[in-house]
Amino acid sequence: MKIESAEVFVASPGRNYVTLKLTTDTGLTGLGDATLNGRELAVVAYLQEHVAPLLVGRDAHAIEDTWQYLYRGAYWRRGPVTMAAIAAVDMALWDIKAKAAQMPLYQLLGGPSRTKLRAYAHATGWSTGELIASVQQRIDEGFTAVRIQPGVPGLNRTYGVNGAGSALGAYEPAARLALPEEEDWDTSAYMRHIPGVFGTVRDKFGPEIDLLHDVHHRLTPIQAAKLGAALEPFNPFWLEDVTPAENQAALSLVRTHTTVPLAIGETFNSIFDYQILIRDQLIDYVRSAVTHAGGITAMRKLADYAALYQIKLAIHGPSDISPVGFAAALHLDLAVHNFGIQEYMMHPVQARDVFDVDYTYADGALYLSDSPGLGVRYDETAAAAYPYERAYLPVNRLKDGTLHDW
Amino acid sequence: MKIESAEVFVASPGRNYVTLKLTTDTGLTGLGDATLNGRELAVVAYLQEHVAPLLVGRDAHAIEDTWQYLYRGAYWRRGPVTMAAIAAVDMALWDIKAKAAQMPLYQLLGGPSRTKLRAYAHATGWSTGELIASVQQRIDEGFTAVRIQPGVPGLNRTYGVNGAGSALGAYEPAARLALPEEEDWDTSAYMRHIPGVFGTVRDKFGPEIDLLHDVHHRLTPIQAAKLGAALEPFNPFWLEDVTPAENQAALSLVRTHTTVPLAIGETFNSIFDYQILIRDQLIDYVRSAVTHAGGITAMRKLADYAALYQIKLAIHGPSDISPVGFAAALHLDLAVHNFGIQEYMMHPVQARDVFDVDYTYADGALYLSDSPGLGVRYDETAAAAYPYERAYLPVNRLKDGTLHDW
Amino acid sequence: MKIESAEVFVASPGRNYVTLKLTTDTGLTGLGDATLNGRELAVVAYLQEHVAPLLVGRDAHAIEDTWQYLYRGAYWRRGPVTMAAIAAVDMALWDIKAKAAQMPLYQLLGGPSRTKLRAYAHATGWSTGELIASVQQRIDEGFTAVRIQPGVPGLNRTYGVNGAGSALGAYEPAARLALPEEEDWDTSAYMRHIPGVFGTVRDKFGPEIDLLHDVHHRLTPIQAAKLGAALEPFNPFWLEDVTPAENQAALSLVRTHTTVPLAIGETFNSIFDYQILIRDQLIDYVRSAVTHAGGITAMRKLADYAALYQIKLAIHGPSDISPVGFAAALHLDLAVHNFGIQEYMMHPVQARDVFDVDYTYADGALYLSDSPGLGVRYDETAAAAYPYERAYLPVNRLKDGTLHDW
Amino acid sequence: MKIESAEVFVASPGRNYVTLKLTTDTGLTGLGDATLNGRELAVVAYLQEHVAPLLVGRDAHAIEDTWQYLYRGAYWRRGPVTMAAIAAVDMALWDIKAKAAQMPLYQLLGGPSRTKLRAYAHATGWSTGELIASVQQRIDEGFTAVRIQPGVPGLNRTYGVNGAGSALGAYEPAARLALPEEEDWDTSAYMRHIPGVFGTVRDKFGPEIDLLHDVHHRLTPIQAAKLGAALEPFNPFWLEDVTPAENQAALSLVRTHTTVPLAIGETFNSIFDYQILIRDQLIDYVRSAVTHAGGITAMRKLADYAALYQIKLAIHGPSDISPVGFAAALHLDLAVHNFGIQEYMMHPVQARDVFDVDYTYADGALYLSDSPGLGVRYDETAAAAYPYERAYLPVNRLKDGTLHDW
Repeated sequence: MKIESAEVFVASPGRNYVTLKLTTDTGLTGLGDATLNGRELAVVAYLQEHVAPLLVGRDAHAIEDTWQYLYRGAYWRRGPVTMAAIAAVDMALWDIKAKAAQMPLYQLLGGPSRTKLRAYAHATGWSTGELIASVQQRIDEGFTAVRIQPGVPGLNRTYGVNGAGSALGAYEPAARLALPEEEDWDTSAYMRHIPGVFGTVRDKFGPEIDLLHDVHHRLTPIQAAKLGAALEPFNPFWLEDVTPAENQAALSLVRTHTTVPLAIGETFNSIFDYQILIRDQLIDYVRSAVTHAGGITAMRKLADYAALYQIKLAIHGPSDISPVGFAAALHLDLAVHNFGIQEYMMHPVQARDVFDVDYTYADGALYLSDSPGLGVRYDETAAAAYPYERAYLPVNRLKDGTLHDW
Repeated sequence: MKIESAEVFVASPGRNYVTLKLTTDTGLTGLGDATLNGRELAVVAYLQEHVAPLLVGRDAHAIEDTWQYLYRGAYWRRGPVTMAAIAAVDMALWDIKAKAAQMPLYQLLGGPSRTKLRAYAHATGWSTGELIASVQQRIDEGFTAVRIQPGVPGLNRTYGVNGAGSALGAYEPAARLALPEEEDWDTSAYMRHIPGVFGTVRDKFGPEIDLLHDVHHRLTPIQAAKLGAALEPFNPFWLEDVTPAENQAALSLVRTHTTVPLAIGETFNSIFDYQILIRDQLIDYVRSAVTHAGGITAMRKLADYAALYQIKLAIHGPSDISPVGFAAALHLDLAVHNFGIQEYMMHPVQARDVFDVDYTYADGALYLSDSPGLGVRYDETAAAAYPYERAYLPVNRLKDGTLHDW
Repeated sequence: MKIESAEVFVASPGRNYVTLKLTTDTGLTGLGDATLNGRELAVVAYLQEHVAPLLVGRDAHAIEDTWQYLYRGAYWRRGPVTMAAIAAVDMALWDIKAKAAQMPLYQLLGGPSRTKLRAYAHATGWSTGELIASVQQRIDEGFTAVRIQPGVPGLNRTYGVNGAGSALGAYEPAARLALPEEEDWDTSAYMRHIPGVFGTVRDKFGPEIDLLHDVHHRLTPIQAAKLGAALEPFNPFWLEDVTPAENQAALSLVRTHTTVPLAIGETFNSIFDYQILIRDQLIDYVRSAVTHAGGITAMRKLADYAALYQIKLAIHGPSDISPVGFAAALHLDLAVHNFGIQEYMMHPVQARDVFDVDYTYADGALYLSDSPGLGVRYDETAAAAYPYERAYLPVNRLKDGTLHDW
Repeated sequence: MKIESAEVFVASPGRNYVTLKLTTDTGLTGLGDATLNGRELAVVAYLQEHVAPLLVGRDAHAIEDTWQYLYRGAYWRRGPVTMAAIAAVDMALWDIKAKAAQMPLYQLLGGPSRTKLRAYAHATGWSTGELIASVQQRIDEGFTAVRIQPGVPGLNRTYGVNGAGSALGAYEPAARLALPEEEDWDTSAYMRHIPGVFGTVRDKFGPEIDLLHDVHHRLTPIQAAKLGAALEPFNPFWLEDVTPAENQAALSLVRTHTTVPLAIGETFNSIFDYQILIRDQLIDYVRSAVTHAGGITAMRKLADYAALYQIKLAIHGPSDISPVGFAAALHLDLAVHNFGIQEYMMHPVQARDVFDVDYTYADGALYLSDSPGLGVRYDETAAAAYPYERAYLPVNRLKDGTLHDW
């Protein structure tokens, strides 16, 4: 079975998505997600100009070989653009192979290890009142695990929440503006505010609901350690991305001071980004996206390595992972033994026009059907009605103007 | 001083080069190299679509802030495409700042720490006889340090050398072919062959010539350790890229068994790729390119970090670093205290039509002039005569077909 | 551009300052601060007798080379006298280079990374009431971060505070006395007293004001750990110099027990004094003075090394760093990405007669102008009216007479 | 017993020496050596202006307290100038105390642990022939341990040897010139040359003579490792100062590859400079001078700490340690249990006019008399005939002009 064509689509049904479609000489097609939020066209060029010509004529079954061919053959390794391109090819080939086997992909990955995939949703509210309303809505939707992101007094806008006084609605960080929004940040204000919010939410909803929180890389290790200790009484499910973690060893300082579970990795692209974190058991959840960490092939190896240390898989699931990438995550989630939880931010409603998916949500969990492959169909005609629009993620500055991690 | 425009040029005078040109409202212009061999258009798209709009109107003097803006503001960090794009902006801004100061860039970096920059050249020959002829040619050109890359009996082609029986000539790995060349590889044959070649070359040219060798990531740590020990009697200047080094700690095994100096890093993009290598003093030379590791701003920090451990700078200087990126390397080389040696592969002759440079070579060393900025001019008209052509680096397979590091 | 003369001035406008002035053959001049509180004339002799003769005729642009020449060329390395002398030369050369470029120095260092420099001031009061009055005064002056130093019951005098019952006024530790004052010290009394003071001040001024405290090297690691834990409820911005730290590893014991941020380094002279502290992430702020740690060249390397570990720059800014050294600090602060905060003790009023500065203070922050170079002018005539007077820092003894760290 | 006066003398009988003389109210006097080669007047100013006023009236018996008073009371710690000043005071006080006890100093330090002090001398010769002649001369003088320093082909001059073709004579690095001599250096040439020289000398003089060699900080760790391994067949007594060792951990790399004994420390001023070296057993001999590491008080603690790890004392004994400092070394050598060997470079003949000493040399060993105190007398009148002359140690540059460790 040879690959006959490799096509790259960019569409913006609510937000930008980059989709790779491989077609084989047997007529089977496979889809891959190559969306890199705010840097989409770099991946498009990478795929169209540098990867697509390599794929035509290759054995569609040789997935591992193709992965190595693209990883080692590029010479220039790692990084989000490269790994998103490889991931898209990898997903599409697994989609094809599963269709060829007439099985859902999770069967090729070892079969189901569970019946459903527990998901967590986002609750956001600038004020604690708004946040509580948002949490309630998630609970009403059936979620038993909710990521809570409040505003911070004195700031104009912060990660994960629309600004103070905004109508409570969907939060989407990527803005279709000429320039990135510049948010402001004050670590002290944030650290003073969060424990109270956590306490209030915990009091309101009781001990059984799992509460998650994303720090979005904004703390130093000692600050993260302090925050972890401060939140312990409220029993967080996890704290996510507490530090930038390019210096992996830094999390050992956090680990010394708190038993709050730690999750990290949505910006990582390689198993080597986790090497010390996992070996030294500095984290509890690996959070890479299938889309950004090299596809099913690479993520399965990462999950298996993590399992050695009882670390679980909690794949990144924001709106900028397309339904294709999200389906890939679910198949892996179902198959690996060390599944933890799946983020489920949901996609813009317009995305349903373009992506037809077989996975479903009910009662706090995600379910896969038994349709072959990934179970996602891409409507090229519908996509054409949503042309790409340039969008940027925000940047973040301290009060004095210093560029800070967003 | 504001940036008024950001233009990206791709041209192929002998090989592909990506060049960024920034123009300020004072009329000053700056050049940056964004060439990523075999993945050029991904960086072009990254710059044109996602970075150029951010630059117009920014303060051209705020180089550190712009670096952080592009690094942290992208959210998705590191990797060759991202860091080449950032590097190009950074180089162009330093070019502008130095022109504004009416000084050569090295003056802004602390002034000259030496009078000339020792360079090493490549000698290649499939047979030992051809290799010796090539070394002799380099010596005749004035070089006192030569990288020797022989063929390996039983293989068809290998890194750094044209195939057996080819006319001795310029070696350029990137091929303008529809697909990458597939080379073959046999580690055992290589390891049996190299010590004899080294011995013969050493015997022929005596103890004073410095002999370097590039293993191009093809060995495991224990193989590298064994090779290092086997070559010690012939006193190599360094062994380069003995392992892939994504697992940085692996070089400690090599280090345990041999005192052969180790160089690594041309595929690295971040100071964090070196964190353990430097901290544990596992290497002797850092080999990143200014172009691929985030520009002058990032490379200076890397050089200074390395200096803490007596590790020296030996910047990557293949033909795919454009004359702009190469000039940036020379300015940094001249300024930092811990300069080691500069690779000088030279550029295709056609590149001279497009890039007018003020650096010169004489008697085994490179020299910078005192012209302001980087001292490189880009001829857009000439460049237009050399349109981009897709080209690929080779890939590499073991005898049984296994994809191996190239 | 050659150095034509090197002159050393010592003057005492309110307190002693040592100032180096370099003049080039182009007529440009540069200033450097070589003040070493209580050991001024050792640096004067070092500069006049041993360094000045080396400078005349040297290339004023070769700053890195001159730094290495003075550091390695002295053979006897490190230490406050040597490094203050080197620092003065380095500052003066950067001043000259920036003037030659017609740019403020921060532009040569990469341009501004922020718009203003947050500063902290000192509040001192023997009694808690006096301390609160002093904090209020700082707040009225616009400061949002204040270092609080109370007296300790049972002691006669302690670091940072005038003795019990003294009129609240400027605190200047260096005394123009025949002999150093001998203060007394009781660690237990101090540790019993401080948490209550912190609590009272925090209660009085609320959660938003940042409170700093300087322990001035007086505790053992386990005492420091205990103090850190005791102060955590009052959320100190940092604890400074909790231990002597000649044994760098000792801070790991402190770090194990508290998440209070740690700052250290005003007595350090070399990046190697921080090697373990930074590598093992035992501190949060590096506190060296540009004047005592080898100048701009050395401090920039230190700041960049610290940045690898998210450690921030918080340069020493007492009255004994002259306005020249203080301006150098501000230029570095503005340029580096990892600026934290700047100490601002202010200078005696008489210093304004001698040093004319372009930096300004407003609303809790310091600002640099865009005047070329460091932006400080030295009035030699005015200086002559303030001849040097010997002065000593105090020493410190336990109740039983044991000499203790002051 | 109170100190009544503190006088500082600088004289140049053959070379510069700084001598402190303390006089007590009992009429006893003590001498201390404060010579810092090439930076003499900085220590003079430190002592005269900042230390002498502190001493008058102090209890001459309170040596430990005075040491702490000067170390902690200066606030600015460590470094060669500070520690040489403290050392001079410390030596003079021990001289006084021993005189007061009417005992040689070694008796107060615990009494003699041996009857004589094995010494090593310097042999120097540019050519191997000259070197052999010099070794023979040392053997004829009775030495059984000789430091051998040959020239290096292609260089003009190197550490420890007069240039090629010079008349073989006393080697004294400090030159009374307007500027430091600039030597040249080529590590490769050095490393190729030394093993042959060692082999020839070993062959010539047989296995029993101990051969030492000083690398004078010029190698990186891996180069030092390689040199150590290369010299092992010739059984060196030690290699000294193979690396700069500001990064103490670096010697672990050397240690991995060779069992050649390592000595280091003549530029160190503090026990903390040895902390990792001793704790990790990376060296075999501590080489500080009593004069530069804080005196008898500090050196005894260093020797005792080293003894914990079977590391021995081998005190620095060049011509720039005055006969006073040298006598102090001998008293310590005689008393401590872990004495290794004593360097004995000897002093210029003119020094005998000024310093009258009771120690003697015979048959490869140094002997102390039973005269009270240090056993050295300083002739102020004779000294006045040898006024101070500025002198500089050389600096060292690589062939390309890079400043290298001298």
